[in-house]
Amino acid sequence: MIPRYSRPDMVAIWSPEQKFRIWFEIEAHACDAQAALGVIPKDNAAAVWTAKDAEFDVARIDEIEAVTKHDVIAFLTHLSEIVGSDAARFVHQGMTSSDVLDTCFNIQLTRAADILLADVDALLAALRRRAFEHKETVRIGRSHGIHAEPTTMGLTFARFYAEMDRNKQRLLAARDEIATGAISGAVGTFANIDPSVEEHVCAKLGLKPEPISTQVIPRDRHAAFFAALGVVASSIENIATEIRHMQRTEVLEAEEFFSKGQKGSSAMPHKRNPVLSENLTGLARLVRMAVVPAMENVALWHERDISHSSVERNIGPDATVTLDFALARLTQVVDKLVVYPQHMLDNMHKFRGLVMSQRVLLALTQAGVSREDAYALVQRNAMKVWEDGKDFKTELLGDPDVTAALSPAQIEEKFDLGYHTKHVDTIFTRVFGES
Amino acid sequence: MIPRYSRPDMVAIWSPEQKFRIWFEIEAHACDAQAALGVIPKDNAAAVWTAKDAEFDVARIDEIEAVTKHDVIAFLTHLSEIVGSDAARFVHQGMTSSDVLDTCFNIQLTRAADILLADVDALLAALRRRAFEHKETVRIGRSHGIHAEPTTMGLTFARFYAEMDRNKQRLLAARDEIATGAISGAVGTFANIDPSVEEHVCAKLGLKPEPISTQVIPRDRHAAFFAALGVVASSIENIATEIRHMQRTEVLEAEEFFSKGQKGSSAMPHKRNPVLSENLTGLARLVRMAVVPAMENVALWHERDISHSSVERNIGPDATVTLDFALARLTQVVDKLVVYPQHMLDNMHKFRGLVMSQRVLLALTQAGVSREDAYALVQRNAMKVWEDGKDFKTELLGDPDVTAALSPAQIEEKFDLGYHTKHVDTIFTRVFGES
Amino acid sequence: MIPRYSRPDMVAIWSPEQKFRIWFEIEAHACDAQAALGVIPKDNAAAVWTAKDAEFDVARIDEIEAVTKHDVIAFLTHLSEIVGSDAARFVHQGMTSSDVLDTCFNIQLTRAADILLADVDALLAALRRRAFEHKETVRIGRSHGIHAEPTTMGLTFARFYAEMDRNKQRLLAARDEIATGAISGAVGTFANIDPSVEEHVCAKLGLKPEPISTQVIPRDRHAAFFAALGVVASSIENIATEIRHMQRTEVLEAEEFFSKGQKGSSAMPHKRNPVLSENLTGLARLVRMAVVPAMENVALWHERDISHSSVERNIGPDATVTLDFALARLTQVVDKLVVYPQHMLDNMHKFRGLVMSQRVLLALTQAGVSREDAYALVQRNAMKVWEDGKDFKTELLGDPDVTAALSPAQIEEKFDLGYHTKHVDTIFTRVFGES
Amino acid sequence: MIPRYSRPDMVAIWSPEQKFRIWFEIEAHACDAQAALGVIPKDNAAAVWTAKDAEFDVARIDEIEAVTKHDVIAFLTHLSEIVGSDAARFVHQGMTSSDVLDTCFNIQLTRAADILLADVDALLAALRRRAFEHKETVRIGRSHGIHAEPTTMGLTFARFYAEMDRNKQRLLAARDEIATGAISGAVGTFANIDPSVEEHVCAKLGLKPEPISTQVIPRDRHAAFFAALGVVASSIENIATEIRHMQRTEVLEAEEFFSKGQKGSSAMPHKRNPVLSENLTGLARLVRMAVVPAMENVALWHERDISHSSVERNIGPDATVTLDFALARLTQVVDKLVVYPQHMLDNMHKFRGLVMSQRVLLALTQAGVSREDAYALVQRNAMKVWEDGKDFKTELLGDPDVTAALSPAQIEEKFDLGYHTKHVDTIFTRVFGES
Repeated sequence: MIPRYSRPDMVAIWSPEQKFRIWFEIEAHACDAQAALGVIPKDNAAAVWTAKDAEFDVARIDEIEAVTKHDVIAFLTHLSEIVGSDAARFVHQGMTSSDVLDTCFNIQLTRAADILLADVDALLAALRRRAFEHKETVRIGRSHGIHAEPTTMGLTFARFYAEMDRNKQRLLAARDEIATGAISGAVGTFANIDPSVEEHVCAKLGLKPEPISTQVIPRDRHAAFFAALGVVASSIENIATEIRHMQRTEVLEAEEFFSKGQKGSSAMPHKRNPVLSENLTGLARLVRMAVVPAMENVALWHERDISHSSVERNIGPDATVTLDFALARLTQVVDKLVVYPQHMLDNMHKFRGLVMSQRVLLALTQAGVSREDAYALVQRNAMKVWEDGKDFKTELLGDPDVTAALSPAQIEEKFDLGYHTKHVDTIFTRVFGES
Repeated sequence: MIPRYSRPDMVAIWSPEQKFRIWFEIEAHACDAQAALGVIPKDNAAAVWTAKDAEFDVARIDEIEAVTKHDVIAFLTHLSEIVGSDAARFVHQGMTSSDVLDTCFNIQLTRAADILLADVDALLAALRRRAFEHKETVRIGRSHGIHAEPTTMGLTFARFYAEMDRNKQRLLAARDEIATGAISGAVGTFANIDPSVEEHVCAKLGLKPEPISTQVIPRDRHAAFFAALGVVASSIENIATEIRHMQRTEVLEAEEFFSKGQKGSSAMPHKRNPVLSENLTGLARLVRMAVVPAMENVALWHERDISHSSVERNIGPDATVTLDFALARLTQVVDKLVVYPQHMLDNMHKFRGLVMSQRVLLALTQAGVSREDAYALVQRNAMKVWEDGKDFKTELLGDPDVTAALSPAQIEEKFDLGYHTKHVDTIFTRVFGES
Repeated sequence: MIPRYSRPDMVAIWSPEQKFRIWFEIEAHACDAQAALGVIPKDNAAAVWTAKDAEFDVARIDEIEAVTKHDVIAFLTHLSEIVGSDAARFVHQGMTSSDVLDTCFNIQLTRAADILLADVDALLAALRRRAFEHKETVRIGRSHGIHAEPTTMGLTFARFYAEMDRNKQRLLAARDEIATGAISGAVGTFANIDPSVEEHVCAKLGLKPEPISTQVIPRDRHAAFFAALGVVASSIENIATEIRHMQRTEVLEAEEFFSKGQKGSSAMPHKRNPVLSENLTGLARLVRMAVVPAMENVALWHERDISHSSVERNIGPDATVTLDFALARLTQVVDKLVVYPQHMLDNMHKFRGLVMSQRVLLALTQAGVSREDAYALVQRNAMKVWEDGKDFKTELLGDPDVTAALSPAQIEEKFDLGYHTKHVDTIFTRVFGES
Repeated sequence: MIPRYSRPDMVAIWSPEQKFRIWFEIEAHACDAQAALGVIPKDNAAAVWTAKDAEFDVARIDEIEAVTKHDVIAFLTHLSEIVGSDAARFVHQGMTSSDVLDTCFNIQLTRAADILLADVDALLAALRRRAFEHKETVRIGRSHGIHAEPTTMGLTFARFYAEMDRNKQRLLAARDEIATGAISGAVGTFANIDPSVEEHVCAKLGLKPEPISTQVIPRDRHAAFFAALGVVASSIENIATEIRHMQRTEVLEAEEFFSKGQKGSSAMPHKRNPVLSENLTGLARLVRMAVVPAMENVALWHERDISHSSVERNIGPDATVTLDFALARLTQVVDKLVVYPQHMLDNMHKFRGLVMSQRVLLALTQAGVSREDAYALVQRNAMKVWEDGKDFKTELLGDPDVTAALSPAQIEEKFDLGYHTKHVDTIFTRVFGES
């Protein structure tokens, strides 16, 4: 995570201020529950809430931690400075540090997921808009980077929409996985704290109680969470790669938006680089690299070891901040992408009708020509196009062996683009529920 | 995938015979749909089904492929040899190879998921049985590999159960993701084939039609699938690691089952190695290594490039076969794990009551002793245990400063294991719905 | 590793026959050393060598292993069947299974490295030949997929040569890392076997003795080995990606060789797919996926755990066989690549001289025109090219404000391709030692 | 990279100040070379060096970049503010941004490698000292976590020394790989700048000229660099895992140093957690996660795309800072590790001599007892130890069938620890060159 690739809302989730705020809420709600059980005095629990609107002094907490070498104790000491040692003396009773740390981490991930979901929604809106805008904008479909059959730019946007919509579902599932909390004590037995405290805190903070925890919340949840981010990132790479291809000098079917004032744009109009999409390709690698360490974190020793912690202190902010930035950047790229329909047609016609050779071949055989003869007929006309720069349809219309099997109208029909776009509405209805 | 770590049912899914069987079904069902549309004669469609019970000759198909260098064409040629060229001439009409290949791959992955789900069910049953068996078998809980507070062996099994139950949900979601088919032609536009063919084939084969495909089914689905396998594998590593720790010479709280006849077992009774669990640790790495390449496969060029294919030809069988084997092996290990409750108690008492020092400390402060004094009291008695081998409870009972604050009964109570197990039923009810 | 992507020599290294052959040699050489020390009778050692030319019966060994559940014991039992139980009784004395297994694995990896080095040499030869062939074949250099400045196809081949030459050095280092053997007993202390046995066996088999082993050879060596393979694979992806770009319909600067008889090539001459290069992209992912598990294998417990074994049984053959196949395939692709120099020129001129706009801008400022004015001059002429399809040089020559600053000859000079190729010889001399 | 796991010297390498300082030196040296060639006036080149001791104003550069959206131009503008626009006008002439950026990045990596090499040297010194200190400290060697045969703590340290010494060689090779620079222009042809400029700049900055670059330095070098870091990290995990095992409550053969004042240490003397080693395990995962993205960065499009940049902006600092911190932390852990030789002996004797059962078995067969009988003899005595808590040697000495084959002295000899340590000096000489 570096400022260059960060947005403030997601960064804020991972700020020390925000972390201490969440810690406070966990502790304060736990006090309420303990008071309800009669374990601690109601007045003390109430007094803790006087810190509700306080600003926690991060520098002061750091200062205390430098002595105690324990972040939760440092925070509690500072809290005591705010609410008074009398109110503070029952805070954290029966709890273990991980109760606070793990519940907080899951709250942060849950909130991060909420931002990512909003990001995806914005991206979906842009993809949808562009899909309908270019529903009928014909371009050549390519397999292996080679011209195959016509498709439309709208279908390209529509498939990215469908893919991102699946990612939305994956993020929702990931959010659901991670939205748990645990207040279960040193080894998860609730020996020193009643399960109702966990239930209360979780209810207040929008979490489900972790059905069974040890000292920590089980890390398979986090592995699944970061794996979902990795899939989303891979889809971003997918879209970015398409745009990079479209913007290649020789293809030039689309360009990232280039602001008028941007230096060099008009003196070297050929030199507009898809740097945002290239950047997205790299960002995808960054998000994806969190997946394997998150999976390595699952196998903790017995009721916990702390090997996961340093990993999560990094990948927690890094992966979410980077993915948030990437989704927002991609949304902007999609939203403002300059599409060149004429270039699409020019490219499709680069080999003067040859992309239709397969349809002609099929038509000849269906008209009763033997497979071998049909092949030879197509081949001799195709070669004139490929080697001598002729137009395929013209050649076919001028070849008596071809016209003996197919009428001029039938030949014309093979070059009709409508043949290829006739099911676009069907597909749009599948994807968007309307066309 | 090597025979040593393979089971026949999963291997069968990936056999050439099975693949050709699936290809046949896709083609034959597509013929039916085409006939229903009137695109091809009904008789021809019916005639294709004469190959229904035929054995496809893999060697013969390989022979043809050596000439045509195209696997689907080789298969279709062989099919023609079986059903006759007349019946065969309408097979595959309007379809592209990927329609067959991708739909088949997803069927294979779906069936693989079904086996994995059955594997997980068997593992869940074993974990549940062992959890209830050892619900009250007390052992020391450990954080950082160091004794913390008592827990029970049943809780250990129960948390593995809960984790695997989450994995079951992940596998179900992954199965759902991958259970799609596509018969949409060269670039996914249905130019040469009606969408109703896709719908018919999918319905017959238990798939949903892919809402929008290109030449291929989008690979974010597969990335999510293999990511789910990676999470399951990481959980296997988690359980295996616990068992390996339990079987360490110095811990010896459990052992993998060791058959009577197994060489060396009784002459060197101390040398029983947790080789199955160690093996599972390695197998987890093997399954996990499919995750990143599957994610790298997502960004195909335009309507498809074939870079994903070689990856999937390997990780498809490898990851599913290895995970199937690992789940079955783990089930056996769990099912037959030899548990040593007495060793658990012995270990817990290794430091003669010191694990209860925190409870005593807390009790002293709650009895009104200042935090500093309480700490000093516990410390001086703890040191006698640690350095001189004394018993903690005995020392406390003999320390007048301690007994001034706590009655002998109160001290005794601090060493009561029931304190730690009182919520086991609560947790079991959360996990299993009963206790 | 699947047959489709395998070559016989590399596969043979990993065959059971070859493995047992190596095991035999380790054991027989160890017997010689033990006999020299007087630990076992010289006659027995000599008798073991009677199996020198024997075929080991893999099926028989498997049969024995099914009973003993131990592969080395099964082999030794079978060896005893060949050389007689009297000769066999001193075989393996003082050794531990890993002495055989680990030394064998390193021999296999060393031999695999030798094949890979030969593969790289063949690839280097092809790259060198093509580099000199196209040393002066001008093509446009591209950054971000966008035309930048001219370069030559020879430089493209030359940089791949330089990269692969570095990979050769990495493979040599990797081979050196892995060429060690260990015969050091159960925990590496030589308690039951003299270090001179290890020295003798290693000397005979072309290995260095591992300076300090435990039960196993340390796995950081293997991690470094597989990491080197991962880098080589990434370079393969790099070259493959270049070729895939060059073969795109719109670029068409080169094509993978397409044999005359290959179906469809002439009826659809535009549809020649770079499937070999795409396949290489996927194979690179497969090789690379061995890197992380190999690194995870390093941290074995104490003097060894066996978690690495299942990983290595897979990635050992898989990564080396796949990389061997990929290197050979790439060599063939490079060797036969069809290069289209005219298309390269056509592409370069797609925007009729605009790629030279930066040189013109620089020349104007050097001729004393202010930066702002120079920019405006270039811009107004560039726009006529970009929007109206004019020729850049012609426009410049016809612009009096331009010709006021630059003579026609000076303008012409800016479009001289020799300007860009003048240091090709320098670079070739750096890379190849000659030009 | 977060402050918690960072050390200032390595962080400084990646500071903006340091980056601009390196940029300045590249530009200033390039001016000298250009002046020597007569391309720019010598006075201007000299004038640039007036900024030699200037502080570059990072905030000001950021401010300019916010307008120009180009970091190198922003820097050059600021440089112009320092040295005057007259001196500055020839700076960067003929160069491309990547000439500066890539050469700078490699300088930073080279300097990072120097710090890492110094870190490894410090670690080697600590390992060597502890190895000699505990050369003869006997402990049980373990395979599979199970007691095998005796070894010494010195051998454990010695093997970590040998492993880290190999890592030193790998880091040296990685440093050598990355210590190149390139000043070769937009596509690497030296069209606008003479190769002698590159040579001069590289010579001044301790780099080799990159033999052939494009717009960028080839990324296989960086892939190899980060792969080397990944191997080092895996070795750190290896050592950390050993320490974590040793500190387990049941093993307790060593502990991380625990300062007297550290809270809780004496009231709960059993609860000292190996948190530093656990942390190192996590840090290893963080370093390792840079390996795959660095490999994915190799396949750039044509003469460059910028996808690698965002990856490197993160993994450059992150991997080196984290590895530096981890090496230093590990050095401290090793240096101060508290070793418990008595616990080592206690553990070895946990099963009262059973670890010697294999030696006894071998001795019996060598004394002429049949394998079956020897096995039965060992077994019946071993069972008395295992099940009834007897002492193995005592039982053997009291078993007339055993003493019929082996004299008491022979039996005693089997329990002699010197048998296992007799080659420690040999191994030390191999590893350290002395013993």
